[in-house]
Amino acid sequence: MATAGKVIKCRAAVAWEPTAPLMMEEIEVAPPQEGEIRIKVVATGVCHTDLYHLFEGKDKRGFPTVLGHEGAGVVESVGPGVTDFKPGDKVIPLFLSQCGECKFCKCPKTNLCDRNWSSKYHDIMSDPTTRFTCRDQPILQFMGTSTFSEYTVINQIAVAKIDDDAPLERVCLLGCGISTGYGAAVNTAGVTPGSVCAVFGLGAVGLAAVMGCKNAGASRIFAVDINEQKFEKAKVFGATDFLNPKRTALESCVKGWGVSVLVGWTDVKDFSARPIQLISGKTWKGSLFGGFKSKDSVPNLVCDYMNGKIKLDEFITHKMSLEQVNDAINLMKTGQCIRCILNISK
Amino acid sequence: MATAGKVIKCRAAVAWEPTAPLMMEEIEVAPPQEGEIRIKVVATGVCHTDLYHLFEGKDKRGFPTVLGHEGAGVVESVGPGVTDFKPGDKVIPLFLSQCGECKFCKCPKTNLCDRNWSSKYHDIMSDPTTRFTCRDQPILQFMGTSTFSEYTVINQIAVAKIDDDAPLERVCLLGCGISTGYGAAVNTAGVTPGSVCAVFGLGAVGLAAVMGCKNAGASRIFAVDINEQKFEKAKVFGATDFLNPKRTALESCVKGWGVSVLVGWTDVKDFSARPIQLISGKTWKGSLFGGFKSKDSVPNLVCDYMNGKIKLDEFITHKMSLEQVNDAINLMKTGQCIRCILNISK
Repeated sequence: MATAGKVIKCRAAVAWEPTAPLMMEEIEVAPPQEGEIRIKVVATGVCHTDLYHLFEGKDKRGFPTVLGHEGAGVVESVGPGVTDFKPGDKVIPLFLSQCGECKFCKCPKTNLCDRNWSSKYHDIMSDPTTRFTCRDQPILQFMGTSTFSEYTVINQIAVAKIDDDAPLERVCLLGCGISTGYGAAVNTAGVTPGSVCAVFGLGAVGLAAVMGCKNAGASRIFAVDINEQKFEKAKVFGATDFLNPKRTALESCVKGWGVSVLVGWTDVKDFSARPIQLISGKTWKGSLFGGFKSKDSVPNLVCDYMNGKIKLDEFITHKMSLEQVNDAINLMKTGQCIRCILNISK
Repeated sequence: MATAGKVIKCRAAVAWEPTAPLMMEEIEVAPPQEGEIRIKVVATGVCHTDLYHLFEGKDKRGFPTVLGHEGAGVVESVGPGVTDFKPGDKVIPLFLSQCGECKFCKCPKTNLCDRNWSSKYHDIMSDPTTRFTCRDQPILQFMGTSTFSEYTVINQIAVAKIDDDAPLERVCLLGCGISTGYGAAVNTAGVTPGSVCAVFGLGAVGLAAVMGCKNAGASRIFAVDINEQKFEKAKVFGATDFLNPKRTALESCVKGWGVSVLVGWTDVKDFSARPIQLISGKTWKGSLFGGFKSKDSVPNLVCDYMNGKIKLDEFITHKMSLEQVNDAINLMKTGQCIRCILNISK
């Protein structure tokens, strides 16, 4: 492409400081270095983890940054040593890498990766420098991805190549929320045919967990939320029973073999329980990205969507442009959307 | 036997009220009813759970009672409908029953039993009445067992028949502490060959967990206690490394696949942790009686001891008579013993 090897100037929504609205800016995106891929972002979801960083952390560290970690796009150019990707490939950026070489990647019991951005360099890509500049300042790459930008640069260990026919403005959801919830049911909880399940919280992650329970053959799926307006949507994904409860996920497990799974990043307060809850044979687990080995699994999940095995369209309640990102954030903060997709470029 | 079908008068240590010393009394033990077995107790261990009931609960309910739940003895007589036991059989009372018929007993994923005393009748045997009387008052049967007495009556679903050659003053330990700790390692945590393990707290239960880790093939076993005098004993059971730490059992797990197991009844305060501990792929579990199906497993554990596969003698630091039970309790309260065995009768 004409832009390969050159700095690209493009639009991005920059978060200059905590709690302030994002600002549309022209940023410079440097060419990809050794092992890196420059991606033209086509669409991105807006996820609670973006909001958490912006509003709840209230910590100056990590700013200025470009948020967004649930995107999909097309390879613009590749850096030296990249052989598995070429310009024009459809890809999904991964906030959780899979290098294939570390002790975690080699172990089937986990999907963590020692080379992930989070292992060493908080808020930036797995290489300790960023490829973004704006107004002569380096701009950090949130979760190593930064999909609220027309272009981004990501290490190849954190990019999944997907089906050429996949609709990017939908499969972008597999970059975070849907994989996280779906995998929490089918991988971490290990739902088996005939199981009775309960899902607490019916945002996109929870609804995806409902879908995972259904696809794993659960005989009853209790959908639980303090906002009863979510029940209708939960029915679409397979929920059979609906409850408006207090927060009692572990207490509701069957003793003997019940499993409670904690996912998502929004609430970072300590959790607690009475010892009898565990001594009576219950298990408390958690997972990141639904326990999916990211680079291996995302292309397969895209195929599952293309083959009708998993739903994505039904999560999408709003579509907007990148310039409307602050409106999208507000929709999510006030619980008015399941997922809003931002169309970044064509 | 001459006593069959008759009330037996015998010695027992009665707990009349919380926090008071146990009193040696003559009690009346009624004959076994339908499905029940009257047992002559030969020896019993003293376990922290006895102390907990006596001192920490400080609740008048559950008194007066005869404590003790880590015993071994000989069948004196059996009630109507008992076909699997006969007078003279060596047995271990089980505080956790195994009826073989309920949904829990039929499920291989748990060792709970719906007919256990704890399911319906706190502090008494699985039948809602007690067989003990003293000074014309009914005396409750603690944990359904009450081994601080020369005789006790227990439902057959809570009695394990063991090897005729087993030394009762040692295998009594398999009635609680040793099975609980050993099983927490080999069953609940599922320690696999080459694992690196840590055991927090080096009382009898913790030492038995060390033994379980070793027998399951762990390559390193960290023994952790705030009392460094316990380290020498831990070495006997297979510990390889020794630490004096703060209480950080879940934090110390490897991310990705680490498992932390909570066992024992002493500390009933809530436990808590940061969500990232679970989201990073760790699991928090617990178990009762080490996850062993009680009636099936205890006879096998006795055989393991007879064949040298598991140690018991090394847990026993003191031997006393039933009359010295308050001294034994004091030794345990002050951390001066691992296990004290009370010889009840010959």
